[in-house]
Amino acid sequence: MEVTVAVDCMGGDHGVRVTVPAAVEWSRRDSGCRFVLVGLQDQIRAELQRAGELSSERLRVHHATEVVGMDEAPANALRGKKDSSMRVAIDLVKSGEAQACVSAGNTGALMAISRFVLKTLPGIDRPAIATMLPTLKGHTHILDLGANVDCSAEHLLQFGIMGAELVASVEHKSRPSVGLLNIGEEAIKGNEVVKEAAVLLRASGLNFYGNVEGDDIYKGTTDVVVCDGFVGNVALKTSEGLAQMLATYLREEFKKNPFTQMLGLLAMPVIKSFKDRVDHRRYNGASLLGLRGVVIKSHGSADAFAFGFAIEHAITEVRTGVLAHISERMGALERKVKPA
Amino acid sequence: MEVTVAVDCMGGDHGVRVTVPAAVEWSRRDSGCRFVLVGLQDQIRAELQRAGELSSERLRVHHATEVVGMDEAPANALRGKKDSSMRVAIDLVKSGEAQACVSAGNTGALMAISRFVLKTLPGIDRPAIATMLPTLKGHTHILDLGANVDCSAEHLLQFGIMGAELVASVEHKSRPSVGLLNIGEEAIKGNEVVKEAAVLLRASGLNFYGNVEGDDIYKGTTDVVVCDGFVGNVALKTSEGLAQMLATYLREEFKKNPFTQMLGLLAMPVIKSFKDRVDHRRYNGASLLGLRGVVIKSHGSADAFAFGFAIEHAITEVRTGVLAHISERMGALERKVKPA
Repeated sequence: MEVTVAVDCMGGDHGVRVTVPAAVEWSRRDSGCRFVLVGLQDQIRAELQRAGELSSERLRVHHATEVVGMDEAPANALRGKKDSSMRVAIDLVKSGEAQACVSAGNTGALMAISRFVLKTLPGIDRPAIATMLPTLKGHTHILDLGANVDCSAEHLLQFGIMGAELVASVEHKSRPSVGLLNIGEEAIKGNEVVKEAAVLLRASGLNFYGNVEGDDIYKGTTDVVVCDGFVGNVALKTSEGLAQMLATYLREEFKKNPFTQMLGLLAMPVIKSFKDRVDHRRYNGASLLGLRGVVIKSHGSADAFAFGFAIEHAITEVRTGVLAHISERMGALERKVKPA
Repeated sequence: MEVTVAVDCMGGDHGVRVTVPAAVEWSRRDSGCRFVLVGLQDQIRAELQRAGELSSERLRVHHATEVVGMDEAPANALRGKKDSSMRVAIDLVKSGEAQACVSAGNTGALMAISRFVLKTLPGIDRPAIATMLPTLKGHTHILDLGANVDCSAEHLLQFGIMGAELVASVEHKSRPSVGLLNIGEEAIKGNEVVKEAAVLLRASGLNFYGNVEGDDIYKGTTDVVVCDGFVGNVALKTSEGLAQMLATYLREEFKKNPFTQMLGLLAMPVIKSFKDRVDHRRYNGASLLGLRGVVIKSHGSADAFAFGFAIEHAITEVRTGVLAHISERMGALERKVKPA
């Protein structure tokens, strides 16, 4: 299936230096992909040239005159920058010229513009940010990661449905298990919203596992972990901080003296193989789920290797029809609650 | 300063086999410590004998006929087991026979019984669970870790005060910095309660740093990190899960083939030194802060080495007068809000 991806080339810490090479690389790897490279055309063309490519049918440059700053207020970006690379890339999804948008830009702005331009799918009140994390068993998908800080039980139910349909589609799992992030496995624990959400999830027809705790994320207890955006964001950032601390400590231990340095050199292939398994770059690309269009957020600091994974997520979501699956499931739930 | 610690000898996964040897070890190390060993006296005496000790002035056995189960409902333990080792140990703090209680038992029951028997300090609505975590700069203290799932801004303020006084006392820091766990550094981010808490913390006279994010915990950005119990519990459990996954992966990589196994053996001292630095056993012992008495919760799975750290926390908190410092600060705040 032919897929056209609109790339916000100006977003992220490194802009065109990362986004353009990643798109070029993918266009070479997958002949069924087309890219619309959105942003300041001179910069984009210079990068294309550096990569030995010319603007073509499969790598089309679409000029946009403005850039959304990484720290810009979302409202500002939404109202004040109608010709930003981010806005234009999303507009291309709205108009159907592209099926997906990938951006490493300002998360808040990307969410605000996506909601405004694309709107949410029927039955979805709020889009959520979902990402994949490595686990002892493979990987899991967790949402929301920060789009929604004050969630109702109904929102958490919708996140569960979206997460389950995401996994069902992109991983071809028939009934992915869904866990509700809580602070104890017993049903009596947790705050009021979470308790209510558990009741809704249990009645939803999803393969609801029940409550899971923080350590279940990395144990891989369920295919999907549902939580509100505040909790999800803290869990994710805490993980990043811990991983960085452990990596620093390990490095320091191997650098202690000439003997440990030599050991470090010898053990390099082992350490490298270990690092590859948990390389966060391989997990780059969070889905803004629940919109009428595929929008993928790359980490702002992503390199071209990492940005490529965000592009891959976009392509996979389009090809496996995640949005149609979510709509279908929401429709079925609607009919169940209010039979015609 | 002479300190008497009441040890709930029956709590935890290993009961007397862990609690008694740890108390014996401490009684030998610190001649200013006395222990009241509470629980089934036959079991305790047998363990004392095994450790080459007899019941003495410094290791007094206090018989208690009941044991609180690790999964028992807190209300059950509170109402139905007046002669449990946990209850009696806390009663000893109430009566002044001991200055602190250490238990590896059921957290919910320990909190419920402590609140009921000891009551909270003036100005403190709810006790919080605080623990120390390793960071890139040393360590930080985080609270609450699960005692309070639906917190108001005032509760978070109280946690900030208690955390700051804890660090000021036990680490002799004059103005420990306090961070508020949030999902973005900008003041506009976060949920309503957290935004309101930031205003209160800023006006409190504490050395308030402002918002911190999940990764700041392990960066060691502040001496104290304040959050509600739901978020804190998820952050802690997520960290445990991630650390376990990384340890498993590293082990697997070193076990891959004979060559990597040999490397693993050679690198053993480096790995061991690394593990020691982040050994969670050294961080064992969470404070139930805000009660009219020192109560320390050990991890249920703690071994004697880890339980010893929980005992050490108890002794340090008594000797440095944490409770008096918290009361003083709460009094000062009260006078500031409502001047006489």
